[in-house]
Amino acid sequence: MSNPPNRGFPPEEFEARTAKAQALMADAGLSGLLLMTEPEVRYFSGFHTLFWQSPTRPWFLFVPAQGKPIAVIPEIGAALMRQTWIVDIRTWSAPNPDDDGISLLTELLSPLANKSASIGILKGHETALRMPLGDYEQLISSLPGLKIEDATGLVRTLRMVKSPREIEKLSHICVIGSRTFARVPGFASAGTPLDEVFRSFRRAALSAGADDVPYLVGGADHGGYRDVISPPSAAALQTGDILMLDTGATWDGYFCDFDRNFAIGQADDLSRHAYDVLWRATEAGIKAAHPGTTCRELFHAMQSVIAEMDSAGGDVGRLGHGLGMQLTEWPSHAEFDETVITENMVLTLEPSLSYGDGRIMVHEENIVVRANGAELLSTRAVPDLPII
Amino acid sequence: MSNPPNRGFPPEEFEARTAKAQALMADAGLSGLLLMTEPEVRYFSGFHTLFWQSPTRPWFLFVPAQGKPIAVIPEIGAALMRQTWIVDIRTWSAPNPDDDGISLLTELLSPLANKSASIGILKGHETALRMPLGDYEQLISSLPGLKIEDATGLVRTLRMVKSPREIEKLSHICVIGSRTFARVPGFASAGTPLDEVFRSFRRAALSAGADDVPYLVGGADHGGYRDVISPPSAAALQTGDILMLDTGATWDGYFCDFDRNFAIGQADDLSRHAYDVLWRATEAGIKAAHPGTTCRELFHAMQSVIAEMDSAGGDVGRLGHGLGMQLTEWPSHAEFDETVITENMVLTLEPSLSYGDGRIMVHEENIVVRANGAELLSTRAVPDLPII
Repeated sequence: MSNPPNRGFPPEEFEARTAKAQALMADAGLSGLLLMTEPEVRYFSGFHTLFWQSPTRPWFLFVPAQGKPIAVIPEIGAALMRQTWIVDIRTWSAPNPDDDGISLLTELLSPLANKSASIGILKGHETALRMPLGDYEQLISSLPGLKIEDATGLVRTLRMVKSPREIEKLSHICVIGSRTFARVPGFASAGTPLDEVFRSFRRAALSAGADDVPYLVGGADHGGYRDVISPPSAAALQTGDILMLDTGATWDGYFCDFDRNFAIGQADDLSRHAYDVLWRATEAGIKAAHPGTTCRELFHAMQSVIAEMDSAGGDVGRLGHGLGMQLTEWPSHAEFDETVITENMVLTLEPSLSYGDGRIMVHEENIVVRANGAELLSTRAVPDLPII
Repeated sequence: MSNPPNRGFPPEEFEARTAKAQALMADAGLSGLLLMTEPEVRYFSGFHTLFWQSPTRPWFLFVPAQGKPIAVIPEIGAALMRQTWIVDIRTWSAPNPDDDGISLLTELLSPLANKSASIGILKGHETALRMPLGDYEQLISSLPGLKIEDATGLVRTLRMVKSPREIEKLSHICVIGSRTFARVPGFASAGTPLDEVFRSFRRAALSAGADDVPYLVGGADHGGYRDVISPPSAAALQTGDILMLDTGATWDGYFCDFDRNFAIGQADDLSRHAYDVLWRATEAGIKAAHPGTTCRELFHAMQSVIAEMDSAGGDVGRLGHGLGMQLTEWPSHAEFDETVITENMVLTLEPSLSYGDGRIMVHEENIVVRANGAELLSTRAVPDLPII
């Protein structure tokens, strides 16, 4: 196993993120950012726990115009938050349905409301409100002077470009993912139930060094699969099946996200052809993904190859996306996304097509964009559909 | 391995859930429920996928006053949704930042808005808004006649009481969890790095039949741990450490959630005493958890034992909770929760205390409430702190 990078980040990483955010906030006239989703709270504080799995308690981090972020969190998280660079930690005994942090937030935000200041929250594309909507409405109505702006673009601008330490972690989990896929022929063959393949894959990823495998989907069917988001059935793999596994494994809170296709015992010509088209579409994506290209252009670079076999554009909605603390992040390689790709973005290239009688095939690689173009983080898939 | 129950549910399960919801909706004067969170969409449709890991796309299920629910979802999910009992499936090519389902929802809800009808959404305790807040605000403002009510209580009432098929699944994953904990002495001893213990635990749970281990936290420290929500460090276990592991493993989308404590090589007297108090507090909870008891009474039954060693009440906020499709569900065993416990509720009993120099200890068991009282789903922890 390769030597893993250090876990966590030194304080200067969070200082730099916060300083960049505060510069963008100043430009946007924002006196603060109120964050409540796991990746954003972790991005600015380093607070890292699976406890977010429980929907019971809300967690808040406020990034002021100057100075360190302020945590407003359930008391159960105080010990862990004190291990981060955050100093101002305000807690309450949660859960408390009558006041789950709302009076603490009101106290924090009142001085800004009294000045009719603006704060940013995330209310745009790919975001959610991770607190009860009723509590949010109560909070806002108790602060009538406060102006609420959408800071999605601001946070997106920051998070899309990864730091060298983030890239180290992403590279590490992609190596782990690649080693796991290399072991698939050892546990998947005709006769193996698909759910056993999934279970073996998870165990192999853990053995290869993954912390967790939060995402594993796939499909297997004769002459090609028809669905790419289902949990596995207990049906046994059969000769002639095309098997696809797509994983988001994590290391220190950073994801890989790529897939691999395998033919069980033998491959039909149509699936071989689909594989070849997608392999070349990925190749076109790798060539196109350099600083200055837009995501729309990257989309078209892949789509023009896919069109050899499928001109409809498919149902997936995009041909890849950003990657980092979440399985999928901004931007999207899609007609609608004019984001300009810059150095140190980490992206997936994910061409897909429909073929035959309602079959679909997907390919995916993970890259980091360097000054001179794409550098693969995943070990490149072989050019011909592998038969196992 | 015990024979697992069937995966999924037959249509009559969803028919029964929907009929119950519609009866409660009629009582509340609601013409529909608009649901968008994973457990609720799955509860009424059977739509089960890890694809929710991606925050990019919103998913909607509308439960009308009569008839089957209507799915308004990204096209990428249509093939999977067609495998459920849902017939009316309306899709769009997502992601589409300009219109991620909003015009489809507007079309669906306009007839109700024109009648000034009321619909329910989840905006109460332990809920979140899993769509962009900006899109929600746009949707509501485009339907000025529509009245939005909080349906959290309605959904909570339904989901708190489990069906026999749900209890089968919960029982199965609790058996898997118990078998996994039984294997801990085989992979955790002085010298083992804590992160390796976690990795081994995950692999053991998968080997025992778990589909996934979305939640695994714990701690280990000399004479007792101080934090129960951290990811593991790479520090090696040492003789005299108290090790705690707390897991939420899943089978077919249902969780177990319990923990176990172990002393490494030897146990200090204070930790032995804390363990004994918590074991007896759990015993008091098991005795108290019968139909007709309130969660507040259950809380006090446990708290009165805990007070032998710690009268402060701790920072955890409650002594257990509901369990099912989520790691934590309503109700809460807490002073504030007057929910009356009924037959077929599945609950955790989770007493905790602080002791010594800032140490904490937690215990947890999973039960189903039967007509004559609690039935353990987890294999009961041994009465004395086990030394491994």
